[in-house]
Amino acid sequence: MAKLARKVALVGAGMSKFGRHFPNKRNPDLWIDAWLDAVSKVDNGINSKDIDACYVGNYSSDLFNHQGHLGPQMANLVGLTPKPAPRFEGACASSGIALRQAVIAIASGVHDVIAVSGVECMTELPTTGVTDVLATASDSLFEYPAGATFPGLYGTLASAHMHKYGTTIEDLMRVGIKNHENGRENPYAQMQQSIKEMMESKKARLEKEGKDIPDWKDEFDFLKSRSNPMIAYPLRLFDCSLITDGAACLFLAADNVAKKFTDTPIWITGTGQGSAALSLHDRDDLTSFIASREAARQAYQMSGLKPKDIQICEVHDCFTIAEIVALEDLGFYERGKAVEAIKNGETKRDGVLPINTSGGLKSKGHPVGATGAAHAVEIFKQMRGIAERNRQVKFDVEKAMTHNLGGSGGTCVVHIYEK
Amino acid sequence: MAKLARKVALVGAGMSKFGRHFPNKRNPDLWIDAWLDAVSKVDNGINSKDIDACYVGNYSSDLFNHQGHLGPQMANLVGLTPKPAPRFEGACASSGIALRQAVIAIASGVHDVIAVSGVECMTELPTTGVTDVLATASDSLFEYPAGATFPGLYGTLASAHMHKYGTTIEDLMRVGIKNHENGRENPYAQMQQSIKEMMESKKARLEKEGKDIPDWKDEFDFLKSRSNPMIAYPLRLFDCSLITDGAACLFLAADNVAKKFTDTPIWITGTGQGSAALSLHDRDDLTSFIASREAARQAYQMSGLKPKDIQICEVHDCFTIAEIVALEDLGFYERGKAVEAIKNGETKRDGVLPINTSGGLKSKGHPVGATGAAHAVEIFKQMRGIAERNRQVKFDVEKAMTHNLGGSGGTCVVHIYEK
Repeated sequence: MAKLARKVALVGAGMSKFGRHFPNKRNPDLWIDAWLDAVSKVDNGINSKDIDACYVGNYSSDLFNHQGHLGPQMANLVGLTPKPAPRFEGACASSGIALRQAVIAIASGVHDVIAVSGVECMTELPTTGVTDVLATASDSLFEYPAGATFPGLYGTLASAHMHKYGTTIEDLMRVGIKNHENGRENPYAQMQQSIKEMMESKKARLEKEGKDIPDWKDEFDFLKSRSNPMIAYPLRLFDCSLITDGAACLFLAADNVAKKFTDTPIWITGTGQGSAALSLHDRDDLTSFIASREAARQAYQMSGLKPKDIQICEVHDCFTIAEIVALEDLGFYERGKAVEAIKNGETKRDGVLPINTSGGLKSKGHPVGATGAAHAVEIFKQMRGIAERNRQVKFDVEKAMTHNLGGSGGTCVVHIYEK
Repeated sequence: MAKLARKVALVGAGMSKFGRHFPNKRNPDLWIDAWLDAVSKVDNGINSKDIDACYVGNYSSDLFNHQGHLGPQMANLVGLTPKPAPRFEGACASSGIALRQAVIAIASGVHDVIAVSGVECMTELPTTGVTDVLATASDSLFEYPAGATFPGLYGTLASAHMHKYGTTIEDLMRVGIKNHENGRENPYAQMQQSIKEMMESKKARLEKEGKDIPDWKDEFDFLKSRSNPMIAYPLRLFDCSLITDGAACLFLAADNVAKKFTDTPIWITGTGQGSAALSLHDRDDLTSFIASREAARQAYQMSGLKPKDIQICEVHDCFTIAEIVALEDLGFYERGKAVEAIKNGETKRDGVLPINTSGGLKSKGHPVGATGAAHAVEIFKQMRGIAERNRQVKFDVEKAMTHNLGGSGGTCVVHIYEK
């Protein structure tokens, strides 16, 4: 069947500042920041009485914060007790799932208006602890005991892509360079500097300290230097997304009540979700994610759109290679052809298909359970024409997409948005 | 609105044997046991090709088993890759939420057939570790650091009920005695002995060892003895549910496809979910759960039924006091009046309102994330007339209910079933 029984609109979206907030802020504080920001984006206002349920996406407050059962806690903080407050989990796609289930619930007729929360507070643990927690999203029986944490798994995927399609480390670096160019224009981003700016400030610091100044001709030289250490070949530090605390909040409403909140709803016309075996050794192909292809197939089918119809997209760049694979899995480019398009600037803000105008997970930050909802926040802003600083795209965005990946591709959720 | 856009049927249900299975069985093994058992209960057969999605309920494989991202793993084991495989969490109500979201998803038109999984493997940790993990479903910032784990929290709730309504420790004990009488008739239960049988075997063992045989006149004497140690006043060991490994599986289908699987579908005509502040100190009332009352209100409203229409119910007896409170919150008895009904035998298998014919969490066991789905397994069997041994009720069950509570009442999910 795979058709929504009624139309669902995104009527407001907001987020907390992404960054290192613990211990000043924990999940409750981050969620309230996101809630208030989203409330401020609803044209005609919204309050708790208007809302039927609180859908919470979170990867593992269990392991990060020793707090399970996050749904009722988040609902209680914003006056939604005793309404339904389920939590959804699919690794880094957790709030993509929360969004999808909220779309489904409104379509079903059970709820009219839902607040979707994505939240994660990661820096309560040291970096090694974070790596350990994230590794539980891979196969704990086979991959984790072998020492294969996520940089290693994505390094394997990148190597496979390089081997099969001739993708180079410069191709990977172009993704990070572009996303930092976007993140510098996002006041909510964790890192708001371009890689060129970071290179220049590193040079200035060395000069000030009276040390030798490296002969870096451009960002690529900088990214190939010791300043960008190898993490898991071929992935260096700047190929990896950030460890982040943050939250995002979305307000969804059924077609017949959306007009109460805004005259310019954004319709969610397609939703898709796919899955794959957790272990890479159970996959047929290491250069593509079957979960992404399946999620995209469902979303395109539901909306009736094709890849060429999508004007902008937020994709899940947990590692630079993941953005390249996403562009191919979503059907924007043929397999092995995305790197050429990236090289030609097509995915930049002023290109024909702007990707990750928010700065992506690479520069905006990646509070894992909040990322899927934060994707939708950027799309909301770009479609409304309210993206901050200099990152608003120069054309009217009528059709957009978000792509939220979990683990090493075990889960993927894709949504399509139309005005 | 709160009406389902199309009807949803339960067409098959099964479960693993509940018990201590680790390390012989882990989540994947338990889930496969449940899947195969449920498949065997579908009249016309079912296979993976018929199924659109795998909805997984699990409380915290993160903390119990250091494995997150359980959805895709469970889906992959039964041939459901690359279909959607979200995980749902609401403490001990996790698979009640999975069931509810599956009902909603089928009603929405997005899916026609869904496999609902509930799974938890707790005995990988020692008992103290389990207590610690469960405590993360309470408020980790205020309750947990004060040493208030669940027996303590429910002890507080029991004391409040005793203070307000004159409930006695014998009233609590009657719940456990009844549930063990039921559990002895359930081949899937973790404990299959009545408390009287346990008392007699204890006596026999003492006699064999040449020790003094206590002068226990009945189960109450036994339950008040050192053989039933105090855990958290007024709750003794036999007021507490079990630490259990287990899984349950449900197959749901839309009205227009249900007939493919069976001529006698069981319709899920009501679903409700409520929430409450996690901390007891944030609640207005310690003798009732607002989340239960809200969930029941929604489910009754959706189905059009009233408490008097319900013929049997599986309620969430994580502690004996929880069953008493549930009977009141669901509207079967006035506040403070349930204990009198229990004393009169109304909730026994041959009473007017059989409660927990499965043996309940007390005797069948409580693998927390599997419990909500296991509730529905018992209702399926009772409505089909296939409950094992001597526990099938003697009348035709046309209307039934399940009540699945999370934490100390932070979440509740209620479902209504009709033939």
